[in-house]
Amino acid sequence: MKPFILGIFQYIGPNGTIGSAWQHPDDTSADFLKISHWTTLAQKFEAAKLDFLFLADSYGFPALNGELIDAALAEGRGIPHGDPMPIVSAMAAVTSNLGFILTTSTTVEPPAANARRFATLDHFTDGRIGWNIVTGSSGATAAALMGKDLISHDLRYDMADEYVDVNLALWEGSWSDDALVLDKQAGLYAEPDKVRMVHYEGEHFRTDGVLSVPPSPQRTPLLVQAGASGRGRRFAGRHAEAVFLAGGDPAVVAANVASIRQSAVAEGRSPDSIKLLVGALFITAETHDEAREKYDEMLSMSTNEGAAAIYAGNTGIDLLALDPDRPLDQTSTEMGQSNLERYLSKDGTPAPLVRDILENFRTTGINGSVFVGSPEEVADQAEAFIATTGADGFLIQPHMTPGTYDDFIDLILPILRERGLAPTEYSGNTLRQRLFGAGAHLPDEHHGAGFRA
Amino acid sequence: MKPFILGIFQYIGPNGTIGSAWQHPDDTSADFLKISHWTTLAQKFEAAKLDFLFLADSYGFPALNGELIDAALAEGRGIPHGDPMPIVSAMAAVTSNLGFILTTSTTVEPPAANARRFATLDHFTDGRIGWNIVTGSSGATAAALMGKDLISHDLRYDMADEYVDVNLALWEGSWSDDALVLDKQAGLYAEPDKVRMVHYEGEHFRTDGVLSVPPSPQRTPLLVQAGASGRGRRFAGRHAEAVFLAGGDPAVVAANVASIRQSAVAEGRSPDSIKLLVGALFITAETHDEAREKYDEMLSMSTNEGAAAIYAGNTGIDLLALDPDRPLDQTSTEMGQSNLERYLSKDGTPAPLVRDILENFRTTGINGSVFVGSPEEVADQAEAFIATTGADGFLIQPHMTPGTYDDFIDLILPILRERGLAPTEYSGNTLRQRLFGAGAHLPDEHHGAGFRA
Repeated sequence: MKPFILGIFQYIGPNGTIGSAWQHPDDTSADFLKISHWTTLAQKFEAAKLDFLFLADSYGFPALNGELIDAALAEGRGIPHGDPMPIVSAMAAVTSNLGFILTTSTTVEPPAANARRFATLDHFTDGRIGWNIVTGSSGATAAALMGKDLISHDLRYDMADEYVDVNLALWEGSWSDDALVLDKQAGLYAEPDKVRMVHYEGEHFRTDGVLSVPPSPQRTPLLVQAGASGRGRRFAGRHAEAVFLAGGDPAVVAANVASIRQSAVAEGRSPDSIKLLVGALFITAETHDEAREKYDEMLSMSTNEGAAAIYAGNTGIDLLALDPDRPLDQTSTEMGQSNLERYLSKDGTPAPLVRDILENFRTTGINGSVFVGSPEEVADQAEAFIATTGADGFLIQPHMTPGTYDDFIDLILPILRERGLAPTEYSGNTLRQRLFGAGAHLPDEHHGAGFRA
Repeated sequence: MKPFILGIFQYIGPNGTIGSAWQHPDDTSADFLKISHWTTLAQKFEAAKLDFLFLADSYGFPALNGELIDAALAEGRGIPHGDPMPIVSAMAAVTSNLGFILTTSTTVEPPAANARRFATLDHFTDGRIGWNIVTGSSGATAAALMGKDLISHDLRYDMADEYVDVNLALWEGSWSDDALVLDKQAGLYAEPDKVRMVHYEGEHFRTDGVLSVPPSPQRTPLLVQAGASGRGRRFAGRHAEAVFLAGGDPAVVAANVASIRQSAVAEGRSPDSIKLLVGALFITAETHDEAREKYDEMLSMSTNEGAAAIYAGNTGIDLLALDPDRPLDQTSTEMGQSNLERYLSKDGTPAPLVRDILENFRTTGINGSVFVGSPEEVADQAEAFIATTGADGFLIQPHMTPGTYDDFIDLILPILRERGLAPTEYSGNTLRQRLFGAGAHLPDEHHGAGFRA
């Protein structure tokens, strides 16, 4: 088995992915609006040789029928959250290997603005930036905040295809590799005939212009995606180099892994051209019993009200207002707008009851498998999970900040290293090189290479 | 005379505001895509107790008729330029007093996205952020890059009024001052009844949502503006707390200063509620003759072709293709889209010749008065300029980076301090407090205060 790819999940807000951990005396997540909170975390992750820090994001907020949900504010769930974009350079300045994967939406900013921002960040980070492409899955509340109409699920992906292509055209097509000269004596900054205008005219987006930033180490940031719907998989097959998958039943995850690799093949790419990373929460301690106590303590900070508030903000559905003993009727919901589809019935399986959805969501959150036990037990579980699913690694979810990470780094990582399942040193200069062991730029088989001059 | 307010002009690109200084052996501006370039500069400005670093920005680029201009690329003029947003946190992390004024446009991103970004930055900088509000003055090339139609000058300002109001409503109206509780023992993050939805419905922008970030030190960043057209002054009178003015003839600047103060009064604000800061390039050395040599060296790096390229990118006018001995016909141009109006005829004055416009632009750039001489001479000129114009200070333009700043800090600043014209220590915790000596929040007389709950 190859070493796992290991990334860290965070967002600019208090708490991890389950419950209201900020209230714990040892938790520092409520410091999320201080720069030093982030630079300290980044240095910790780099010292542990972890591959990247992922900053999730959404403009959505917990509201129902136009009213904020009291429990969300009281518990700090779903609100507050800040903008992840501004914090990257402070973390990049105090690290030299850790990657940063930043989320932006294809429904908010013009594509050329996104292209210039990521190109600038790829320079500032010396090629350590990735772009998590979201298509507006936070749905109705985010659209209302932005003053836009909600766009249907499949149309959002059609638009996102074009949005990504505008970015690729600017990153790959504007400057030849040898355009930048920087000859002080000759007074020649760039070769004019090696920089060119990009013209793109789609149904939803157009551009006539140039990337105003010279080529960055990766040119195109590592392209990352998280949707798991059928249309989302097609999008991933075309664009993504890494996909974040929700955890849960290993058989379901294995099917998703295989399906996404197949979607890459359908686009003329190799099956291992997409790294599959599964959301996972690791709760460990010196002994099994202590780990179980930590797990129980975590659940004691996760309420039905807080979980329901987040669920409502993502879907528009108030689970607390429904009969807990009836199945959730998918057709009556906005579920198609959300990343919570996995809580609904799959083909041929019975629809889950409202009470089970809520309990599942309260105890596992949006993204993760939960592994609980002694360090050896958890390492065993993780190894078995990767063996079963064929995934490439984990997106490590936090409960306590920084406690959950400290436990992973101090207790689990040494065992994974002993087994050859985690690297002991950084390799590769850019995030793309680190993950694939190949070049810094998009591989030629990626359709983005077609935008090169 | 009060101490001057002193800010620094920069953008994420090579060169200062005149010529191609990057080619000089001592110039470091071509390092603009390295974080350390910016953190070193920020620490220098903070050590000198300067008030703020302003990061200009534009999505425009030097093109004519859809083609990039060769001279711009060869000389590094107008292109390249990167995104200023991502660099602020790295500089904020290594400073504790320097302010940062960041440019965003009211025609690019949704207003609620801008509001969240600046609120996050106001936290990260501990209240040291300002927002330079531009309305898309870079015109046709930026619009084409963004895939948008060019909007007429006055309509852009009408839209910008609404855009700023959406931001103000979110910053001032979402959270009461005492909404945030952060009581770990009680498990209470915020008082739900002290956070509220904001509803704004204008002709051009709407929002139904909440600022997802708790109140930052300033809530509303310091509001800054630069347009000097009649409609621009009305906009400044309504919103701006600082206005950047182009330098030049002191009598013209004095009239602009008086007119902008009057525009504040017309909006029910006090005449000194707007700080007027004039673009100025200071070229100095130990002796008068050495300073003249530096000035001549600067002009030797500024070509007609480079100046014309920038002018074309801003206006769509190719000065090199026109008869140099004829006046520029304003009606045939896109000049209304640009900040170069001051090069055109004023009421009752003869229209300038094309050759004079180009020479003026080549030697003084977009923004500045140019003061040349020994340190005492330049200090005298600066003092006289402020006395004549009634402005509050200067926006210091660079020629050489960091040479022009080093000269100002080492040679001119000590003389200004002796005369009581520059502070020796920082005062006030936030950028707004530093500039006005009053509170951290918008004053009650500002219309933005009306958005408070």
